[in-house]
Amino acid sequence: MEGVRALHKLVLSMSPFSLPKISPITHVLRNKIQEKIDTKTKPLGSLGALETIALQIAEIQNTTSPILKNPKLILFAGDHGITEEPVSLYPKDVTWQMVINFLNGGACANVFAKHSRIEVEVVDVGVDHDWDDSTKNLLIKKIRKGTSNFLKTQAMSKEESHQCIENGFKLILENKYKESNVFLFGEMGIGNTSSASMILSHLTGIPLSKLVGKGTGLNPEGKQSKLQILERAFQRTGKLNDPMEILSEFGGFEIGMMVGAMLGVASEQKLFLVDGFITTAAYLLAYHLDPNVKDYAIFSHVSDEEGHIIVLNHYQINPLLKLNLRLGEGSGALAAYPLVELSIQFLNEMASFADAGVSDADKKV
Amino acid sequence: MEGVRALHKLVLSMSPFSLPKISPITHVLRNKIQEKIDTKTKPLGSLGALETIALQIAEIQNTTSPILKNPKLILFAGDHGITEEPVSLYPKDVTWQMVINFLNGGACANVFAKHSRIEVEVVDVGVDHDWDDSTKNLLIKKIRKGTSNFLKTQAMSKEESHQCIENGFKLILENKYKESNVFLFGEMGIGNTSSASMILSHLTGIPLSKLVGKGTGLNPEGKQSKLQILERAFQRTGKLNDPMEILSEFGGFEIGMMVGAMLGVASEQKLFLVDGFITTAAYLLAYHLDPNVKDYAIFSHVSDEEGHIIVLNHYQINPLLKLNLRLGEGSGALAAYPLVELSIQFLNEMASFADAGVSDADKKV
Repeated sequence: MEGVRALHKLVLSMSPFSLPKISPITHVLRNKIQEKIDTKTKPLGSLGALETIALQIAEIQNTTSPILKNPKLILFAGDHGITEEPVSLYPKDVTWQMVINFLNGGACANVFAKHSRIEVEVVDVGVDHDWDDSTKNLLIKKIRKGTSNFLKTQAMSKEESHQCIENGFKLILENKYKESNVFLFGEMGIGNTSSASMILSHLTGIPLSKLVGKGTGLNPEGKQSKLQILERAFQRTGKLNDPMEILSEFGGFEIGMMVGAMLGVASEQKLFLVDGFITTAAYLLAYHLDPNVKDYAIFSHVSDEEGHIIVLNHYQINPLLKLNLRLGEGSGALAAYPLVELSIQFLNEMASFADAGVSDADKKV
Repeated sequence: MEGVRALHKLVLSMSPFSLPKISPITHVLRNKIQEKIDTKTKPLGSLGALETIALQIAEIQNTTSPILKNPKLILFAGDHGITEEPVSLYPKDVTWQMVINFLNGGACANVFAKHSRIEVEVVDVGVDHDWDDSTKNLLIKKIRKGTSNFLKTQAMSKEESHQCIENGFKLILENKYKESNVFLFGEMGIGNTSSASMILSHLTGIPLSKLVGKGTGLNPEGKQSKLQILERAFQRTGKLNDPMEILSEFGGFEIGMMVGAMLGVASEQKLFLVDGFITTAAYLLAYHLDPNVKDYAIFSHVSDEEGHIIVLNHYQINPLLKLNLRLGEGSGALAAYPLVELSIQFLNEMASFADAGVSDADKKV
């Protein structure tokens, strides 16, 4: 068995790891799209952020009449070795228990997805659990049963990091997603605010003290203890800059596969919605691997996890919602999805001043 | 004809004007509702503002399993004599033209309402237009063809103010709304940011210079000129405190009928969503007439009209959305409505920790 693993590693390290190519969005229709927005029966610019999104999606689809087709929520789940330390309020078993909850339709993600008729796919990228027959709808892309404890060692090998990113973008290219042009991503992994804090601190240079939050609900003492553990993990490696190295050192598998999925969606010139703190960490890894990914992302919300607003401000990202959510599972992206629908619908369905016989503004005043 | 008007006025002034009685919401189920929220499979409090709304609606309906039934959007339209002055970018005719646009389904309000399967009713409370047969779906509650110019005189008589408030609450009691338990309100009336600014300045004591904004899109010079006109109107009356007197002095008919409708909804112990700047002015008139109305209101958004955030902060109101909308027509309330649906759905449909076999938090950490 060890021999097989060694051979597998050798093959992985020999195979050239290359990211999918992402083209920036084209602006050839910008004037036409903007004109369509501006001649709707409403004061100029009066739909604010919804106009910005409408323009972005129309440009992604290179049409003045964009549509949202077969939206999908993909939930990536994985366990984290760092949960050997007291970093989370919930036991590690909650990861696999929540996977079963997703499969049974009982989680927030299911309820919110149903509201917008969004299909949910759940992927085991590295959950520390052996599934029984009741989980046949679970997509198994398990790299390993949880990452290693990054306080003591690298969370994932370089090969494992490559593998989960590759699994991510290959998933998006699968035939079953061919007819979907909008994706929402979410995650489940007890301990993953710790990974996300480490990733974001290394990527941005913002100190951990500003990025480590209460996670699922730590009290001030619990949060302080989590910060001290993460600061020791920071000392283990020193400051890193390479996104692939940062992912390997701190994990997790679910974050890595989400990075790959975002790159895959952007390479297909499709739209995706970024959720909260952990999804933002995945997005920023993808962004540092290829900044063109930015053109295809809509930022759904700023979460109640204290570091999220700091990171969003750092990148001058202005998300749609601020509802003090801190649940993960794509819940913020799902809450913002109706606004994305409204932005497309006003563009396609509202009457123009000419259609409706409504007088336009007196531009002199 | 003048004789009939005089008699009508006499009857109105003789009939005792009384507001519907509003009971505060009961908290008898608060602990049970909160327990239901807290045992859902999510970290405690992690649905933020959606938990607050879920609790409010459950308390309004005095049940742990609230529902939203037959939501209605009511759009009140009226004209404003102040448009004789250069206070708006759009000609006054846009009021009746937009009413026709609403009836034909081409406005933003229609598109957004359709998204959430919300029925739209349009009410002429005082539009300066004679309708033809094509507008048979328009509800006519016309008080007069537009208010008087409040720079020079009282916008509405005391009797007219009473009448439009009474029309508002009587409308809600009509049989056709019996099966509806949630209402969204919007308005159309060229010039009505001017009325709203006057109302809000008198109610709050905040100077007009902080409350007068660009409306439908005035440039800085246009805005300055609007401010000067409104400051002259303020000098005409001096500071007022009585909500009924403020409504009479500055109008408009659509605002008054909305005040009555909000009081009516609250008296029926039903829910309503407050839209933007003008709807907030109507809400605050209602609130100053009866503070219990507050229990039944959800604040949907802070608009891009500069004074809105100042007024909301003054009353410590924290609305759901900030999307830089400034369109009116209930568009912000409609944009927030899916969040209200999600708040009810998580409460009714999510699994509990016990149902799903998910471990709860280790309360010790």
